[in-house]
Amino acid sequence: MDTTAYALTRTVAGSFDEVVERVRTELAAEGFGVLSEIDVQAALQQKLALDIEPYLILGACNPQLASRGIALEPDLGVLLPCNVVVRRADGVTHVAAMEPLAAMRLAANDELEPIAREARERIERAIERL
Amino acid sequence: MDTTAYALTRTVAGSFDEVVERVRTELAAEGFGVLSEIDVQAALQQKLALDIEPYLILGACNPQLASRGIALEPDLGVLLPCNVVVRRADGVTHVAAMEPLAAMRLAANDELEPIAREARERIERAIERL
Repeated sequence: MDTTAYALTRTVAGSFDEVVERVRTELAAEGFGVLSEIDVQAALQQKLALDIEPYLILGACNPQLASRGIALEPDLGVLLPCNVVVRRADGVTHVAAMEPLAAMRLAANDELEPIAREARERIERAIERL
Repeated sequence: MDTTAYALTRTVAGSFDEVVERVRTELAAEGFGVLSEIDVQAALQQKLALDIEPYLILGACNPQLASRGIALEPDLGVLLPCNVVVRRADGVTHVAAMEPLAAMRLAANDELEPIAREARERIERAIERL
């Protein structure tokens, strides 16, 4: 697994659809439900007649962590849910999850730090198990 | 309108449902479709039996800007779509939109700057017209 400025990333063996299912399973094991799903490939095809490879944004939310965060910072929903991208490029399936500490630091509210840290640990475990 | 570290915010006169509809209309006028919608109030009620006031996260996406961004930065979907929160608190309807420049700076890719700037101008106009 690699960490960029804003994401935890890795490549995963398996077809796009298989990896999407494993991402869902491992997120669920860490208490994250998928509350939104954006098929970017389909959206760009429909709106711009643009062909790109399979590209999905899953919006993962751990209700306990989200509710604690919103209680501390009411507009925090702007930075939620925790997006996990699954995309295909050059014959390889790539997974990238929002780095919760980076996203939460945008809010500049120190009380969010332990929540973001727990989210990061859970997301990291899910990605590592893929 | 106010600008926080990560959001463009304002309060808007009108009921929650009226404001949600105006947000959709004004986002559409700036080329942003709503590709995801998370009813946080319903999710926390269902998952945690927790009662909060109405709270919706609309995922707004301008396909031209999104496709240009993804072409420059393949994992950018982690920071998309541009979330707009509509929430009710203390008898007032609040709107908060992700500040695209703040979100894009997380990616630390200078080539994204003009795209984020255009997104910011469009979101700002939509919020100002509410």
